[in-house]
Amino acid sequence: MPRNQQILLDSRPQGEASAGNFKLVEADTPPLADGQVLVRHHYLSLDPYMRGRMNAGKSYAKPQPLGEVMQGGTAGEVVESRHPRFAAGDPVVGFGGWQQYSVVDADQPGALRKVDTAQVPLSYYLGAVGMPGVTAWYGLVKIIAPKAGDTLTVSAASGAVGSAFGALARARGCRVVGIAGGPDKCAYVRDALGFDDCIDYRRHPDLASLSAALQAACPDGIDGHFENVGGLVLDAVLQRANPYARVALCGMIAGYDGAPLPLANPALILVNRMKVEGFIVTEHPEVWPEALAELGSLVAGGRLRPRESIAQGLAAAPEAFLGLLKGRNFGKQLVRLI
Amino acid sequence: MPRNQQILLDSRPQGEASAGNFKLVEADTPPLADGQVLVRHHYLSLDPYMRGRMNAGKSYAKPQPLGEVMQGGTAGEVVESRHPRFAAGDPVVGFGGWQQYSVVDADQPGALRKVDTAQVPLSYYLGAVGMPGVTAWYGLVKIIAPKAGDTLTVSAASGAVGSAFGALARARGCRVVGIAGGPDKCAYVRDALGFDDCIDYRRHPDLASLSAALQAACPDGIDGHFENVGGLVLDAVLQRANPYARVALCGMIAGYDGAPLPLANPALILVNRMKVEGFIVTEHPEVWPEALAELGSLVAGGRLRPRESIAQGLAAAPEAFLGLLKGRNFGKQLVRLI
Repeated sequence: MPRNQQILLDSRPQGEASAGNFKLVEADTPPLADGQVLVRHHYLSLDPYMRGRMNAGKSYAKPQPLGEVMQGGTAGEVVESRHPRFAAGDPVVGFGGWQQYSVVDADQPGALRKVDTAQVPLSYYLGAVGMPGVTAWYGLVKIIAPKAGDTLTVSAASGAVGSAFGALARARGCRVVGIAGGPDKCAYVRDALGFDDCIDYRRHPDLASLSAALQAACPDGIDGHFENVGGLVLDAVLQRANPYARVALCGMIAGYDGAPLPLANPALILVNRMKVEGFIVTEHPEVWPEALAELGSLVAGGRLRPRESIAQGLAAAPEAFLGLLKGRNFGKQLVRLI
Repeated sequence: MPRNQQILLDSRPQGEASAGNFKLVEADTPPLADGQVLVRHHYLSLDPYMRGRMNAGKSYAKPQPLGEVMQGGTAGEVVESRHPRFAAGDPVVGFGGWQQYSVVDADQPGALRKVDTAQVPLSYYLGAVGMPGVTAWYGLVKIIAPKAGDTLTVSAASGAVGSAFGALARARGCRVVGIAGGPDKCAYVRDALGFDDCIDYRRHPDLASLSAALQAACPDGIDGHFENVGGLVLDAVLQRANPYARVALCGMIAGYDGAPLPLANPALILVNRMKVEGFIVTEHPEVWPEALAELGSLVAGGRLRPRESIAQGLAAAPEAFLGLLKGRNFGKQLVRLI
């Protein structure tokens, strides 16, 4: 069995996460038991939710245990199988964590899934046609529930969730306005992703300025918003929300480092009779098949061309992850291991 | 036609509302046209939403116009009618405003409604069996949608909305915990209204203390919350909310005077996958018949005995209203005009 490099959570962050919280080790991969599959990971997915799990405190998932392999989504190839449904060479996605190989009990529900790489590249199954894509789909379809002509906004628009959100919203006849950091990302959101407009939040560091920019980009107000970040963006969106606007609350990256970020004026939720709803897509397995089918067909049809930020080699994972938390990635952040 | 004392909105508040914002005048009541009814008001309803309408800014209703009679619900008796469905002596509820008499176009939908005072006192149609009661019903049934055994909380529990909420929640087998100001109100909420417990927020002036009190009163966490106040209470409830908890956002009295009250940690909405929804009960006329029927039967059956704070005479309305905004009322605030 091959040697297996792994990255463990070595300590919990005090405030901002740092490279010192992680530790690279090497271990043997254990021999397979019946029903198990050995997977070689080609890609690790890096996602903002991982930062929440690094804390010990109450969150929606159990904290990532100290001293264990960092958990996360993986895409790769079966190298050895003692399970009848999997064979060496099968492309698969799973939740193998920050390591080169994983041994998977393939009968466990959701543990390992064969994917079709004819029309969708393997790495996309960690992004647009994976958890981030389904996240966008759930917030859009199940919480925002837009009608054609609605104006929708999304923060972190150039990222994996945001880019899928834009394609899904446009497929429903909505006007969709992104919010992203920096002129390059905004140009990409407008030109490559096909959003109707994109606001560079770095040019609008205060509420009045960001709110005015939203008003200019959304002259008919905002009917639905998908929140990936929290903080100032959400405050500004509330100021421009139409009556009965819906907010899907998916990420609060801005608050992960400890100090909670307040919402400046929650009374606007009442004034506008809004709905603000948080969700975790892994709790809604019933929507995945429908969502993945739509996302796959958007990719196959060329209407969703997600960008990827790819770091090379397992040792690069911690820095790539810390960069993601600071918005240094550009599109879906991955680590390639082959 | 009788002379008619009226209270006008004379100026908009700068910060806190004051008696100087109102002006008492006297006018003639105009002669009736066909289809009109002259109503003598026995009771005016004073409600927190009126404070929002005194501002010029964006709110869920048009601002109360300057120089016009303060708008508000009224209960009274028909004294003269040129409409076939109404006759002198009929007990009626309507939206006659802060004045002794009103001339009503009785064909206008919702303008005037005959009520049955055999089992429900006339004044209750402004409270438990009126808009405040339906407000409680909508938030409980349509937003919180509890199941038996859920733990629910409500702020301003001794008021018109809170007391109806308690009776409706207990009728559904829920544990219901009130939040109110002062030992008298809390004793009343527990003993007379039959809540399972009541927290005196004045004894818990900071978040840690209020949160600890909620934890003690809600050992299984909070599944649903009805918010009449905003501010610290909502912050504390979010800290004790269970996964999938629902918050019906009905009032933000605490923020009406201008300075917006922030929500300390909105990320908890995501962490707990909560739903926070604002609503205005007058936008949901379809639920009123069902809600009023249930509320009337709770009153008739002795399971909802709302308390009233009654000010005497039209001139007392402004002070009574300002007292309501500071929580000086005890139960539904009314002005009696006869």
